[in-house]
Amino acid sequence: MKTWQQGLLSAAALSLVLVGCSDKGSRDDLDYSQLTIPADELVRNEDLAYQLAESLVTKVGPRMPGTDGDHRSVEWAVKKFERLGYDRVWTEEFPMTHWERKSASFHVLPPFNQSLHMKSLGHSISAPEGGIRARVVEFASIEALEAADPAQVEGRIVFINRAMERHPRGATYGPAVRGRSLGAVEAAKKGAVAVVIRSIGTSINQVAHTGMMRYEDGVTKIPAAALSIPDANQLSRMLARQPELIVDFDLQNISHGEVMSRNVIAEMRGTEAPEEIVLIGAHLDSWDTSHGAQDDAAGVGIVMATGALLRDRGQTRRTVRVVLFGAEEIGLVGARAYTDRHMDDMHNHVFASESDFGSGRVFSFDTNWGENALSFADEIQQRLSALGISRGHNNSGGGPDITFMQQAGVPVARLQQDGTYYFDVHHTPNDVFETINKDDLRQNVRAWLILTEMLANSDVDLRQ
Amino acid sequence: MKTWQQGLLSAAALSLVLVGCSDKGSRDDLDYSQLTIPADELVRNEDLAYQLAESLVTKVGPRMPGTDGDHRSVEWAVKKFERLGYDRVWTEEFPMTHWERKSASFHVLPPFNQSLHMKSLGHSISAPEGGIRARVVEFASIEALEAADPAQVEGRIVFINRAMERHPRGATYGPAVRGRSLGAVEAAKKGAVAVVIRSIGTSINQVAHTGMMRYEDGVTKIPAAALSIPDANQLSRMLARQPELIVDFDLQNISHGEVMSRNVIAEMRGTEAPEEIVLIGAHLDSWDTSHGAQDDAAGVGIVMATGALLRDRGQTRRTVRVVLFGAEEIGLVGARAYTDRHMDDMHNHVFASESDFGSGRVFSFDTNWGENALSFADEIQQRLSALGISRGHNNSGGGPDITFMQQAGVPVARLQQDGTYYFDVHHTPNDVFETINKDDLRQNVRAWLILTEMLANSDVDLRQ
Repeated sequence: MKTWQQGLLSAAALSLVLVGCSDKGSRDDLDYSQLTIPADELVRNEDLAYQLAESLVTKVGPRMPGTDGDHRSVEWAVKKFERLGYDRVWTEEFPMTHWERKSASFHVLPPFNQSLHMKSLGHSISAPEGGIRARVVEFASIEALEAADPAQVEGRIVFINRAMERHPRGATYGPAVRGRSLGAVEAAKKGAVAVVIRSIGTSINQVAHTGMMRYEDGVTKIPAAALSIPDANQLSRMLARQPELIVDFDLQNISHGEVMSRNVIAEMRGTEAPEEIVLIGAHLDSWDTSHGAQDDAAGVGIVMATGALLRDRGQTRRTVRVVLFGAEEIGLVGARAYTDRHMDDMHNHVFASESDFGSGRVFSFDTNWGENALSFADEIQQRLSALGISRGHNNSGGGPDITFMQQAGVPVARLQQDGTYYFDVHHTPNDVFETINKDDLRQNVRAWLILTEMLANSDVDLRQ
Repeated sequence: MKTWQQGLLSAAALSLVLVGCSDKGSRDDLDYSQLTIPADELVRNEDLAYQLAESLVTKVGPRMPGTDGDHRSVEWAVKKFERLGYDRVWTEEFPMTHWERKSASFHVLPPFNQSLHMKSLGHSISAPEGGIRARVVEFASIEALEAADPAQVEGRIVFINRAMERHPRGATYGPAVRGRSLGAVEAAKKGAVAVVIRSIGTSINQVAHTGMMRYEDGVTKIPAAALSIPDANQLSRMLARQPELIVDFDLQNISHGEVMSRNVIAEMRGTEAPEEIVLIGAHLDSWDTSHGAQDDAAGVGIVMATGALLRDRGQTRRTVRVVLFGAEEIGLVGARAYTDRHMDDMHNHVFASESDFGSGRVFSFDTNWGENALSFADEIQQRLSALGISRGHNNSGGGPDITFMQQAGVPVARLQQDGTYYFDVHHTPNDVFETINKDDLRQNVRAWLILTEMLANSDVDLRQ
């Protein structure tokens, strides 16, 4: 088992270790062991979140759970929290499964003779040695697959070609994800040899969308991947001309078994009720194929900046705790570990919320609070409305990583961001720093400052 | 030398040949030798160009000169011209250099430890065995490189990080291409070991832009590649923190030497002056990394449809010749071959123009005609203005593949399209069918019908 300590080497030592492992000839005039990255100059203003996101994306880049990038992101976060003057900074370790993407190919044989853009879904097994040669059967949705005669599916590659519409709240994502999560199981039950889905997303760029899939005990495991949206259309157009076309499909991935990752936690201690915790969070990890700027460097920047800028305005009554969750992408692993570890202290978590929907402007303040607390929500809303934010519903989640805390009774809210274009880049290589709009991010920070400050200075019990 | 005839095998035979070469185990129940693509149903209406573009992109896909896709595109074009009822359809062979992209990698060593998105520029050599490990030196433009002290450059990878602005006529492309064409020569003159340029283009998607580069006799050949635009920014941000960062760079390509490709030519014969040729063209080939929808399946559809729809309105006085040039992308090779071969008949080419700027709407009618012909241009303009097209200048080229004919004295014009967003996808994997706007393509066909019909039914000498 690879231990976390291997990831805690200093940047310089890490550099030595990795360079030492390289099998490339080095040039004599290159003294790479002396390289260090100078400190970022952080300016404490409303663009602090933007600076933090830029720093994370640039210095660390992709940070797939279990990789060197994951470990360096933890190191980065600890240093940044310390430099921002948080009262206390620590990490909490948890175990997780480290899966690594190797290669994917989807080649339509002659007469088309074309390779399409495909990526493995997260945690898919590899194809059998030598790959798979098979015909394809297309379904408009996983529901259509579920309704299909197994004779149509037997021995084929199932192709689930379900399009996703844009939605400001991303409400169309969940239903689309059903095919990604369950496609391999439903296809295998009917004898399919593999499953490919149309990428979940809303852009026509030639990139495949990744994300987690799962298997079920007792059902044969088959490889699962996603085609880019244009190439899903391309395949569909080919099938319209030639339903019996044949494909060479291959997928290679490695499961490294259990390794350790970490949540990074920092606090600004409260004055009168330091044991009461107003928790604001984001997730530090990203998919391997992406810089994870929208998902979720933007959120990391927002909540780290919020805690720091809040302290500049004076110490709050309650403690403000910022949690950067690890291993969100592969199944909320860090979030579960955090909740489990702090279960005895959940009653002191007076509030929890996460920023994990990119850098889009906040347009709705959604809560999930007790009746008696709703007048306090209205007070907060009065200040938020200057930022163009409307009062939303009182049936909210708090964000993916807040799920388990909410289940444990912690009151949550969401500063709902506009996600109309979020799924153009989400979980793809196009999730880059340039997609972050500085002005939109500033509006987010202002909203989080209002919400967090009012909660941290109040004694209202949101449960009631 | 690979001959053209290898590409002229029927689709079924080709299928057998290629399947026979496969080293994958085939499944017994798959009788792949019987696969054929059914004929597309073409409807002769103003969406004929759209249907043709869809057919080319879907059936053939990428069609890099010298590849199976190139040969299949020629086969496709011959069949489509015949089905559209052209009077005469033929191909003309020419030799060209077949270059094949294999792999590219650009990895920034720790402490960054990140791989960036890079693609080889067209016809670049490979890196030396084992790749190159070197420091990077960034320049804002090739002009800045030219002005630099060689001591800054010696032993380094030169990084030309020049951004390109949008422009409706694409006028910003040429100046940007200077760095791509000449970067390797200028960098090598100062002792650089490789050159990488910021992708030429206008989108922030994570794709690298390819295109031709060249070497110069007497100057050391070094490998040349392009980083995606977000990763050019990423590298620049890294260099701002750590100017001495070190990179492992590798590039592998193969030059297959001389092979044959073809221009495809079709005519609708004229009645009174059949020897006089109104030539309208597009190019059939594309880059290997792309479906070549904008570049140039759109143009192929436009000119093929124009000739066919024109005949539906009656035979014209002069002959309308549609030329689909081959090997445009690798240096206008088919265009040069066409002009050389028909040099003795250039006086009968009364007009030539090409559609090679995607599917954007035509907004300007530009000419390069003699003084006496300008009143005829005004007559044409009167009809074009209903389509929102303005009269442009009289100093026009006719399109890339028309260059040599224009040099040989053939009068040209251009239906200038809006290319504001063309370089978002040009020469990248994002150049997909979905980027073609059906309504815009329809407007193009209408404009080409007006222009071609008026020219083919007139006896005006555009040279005078």
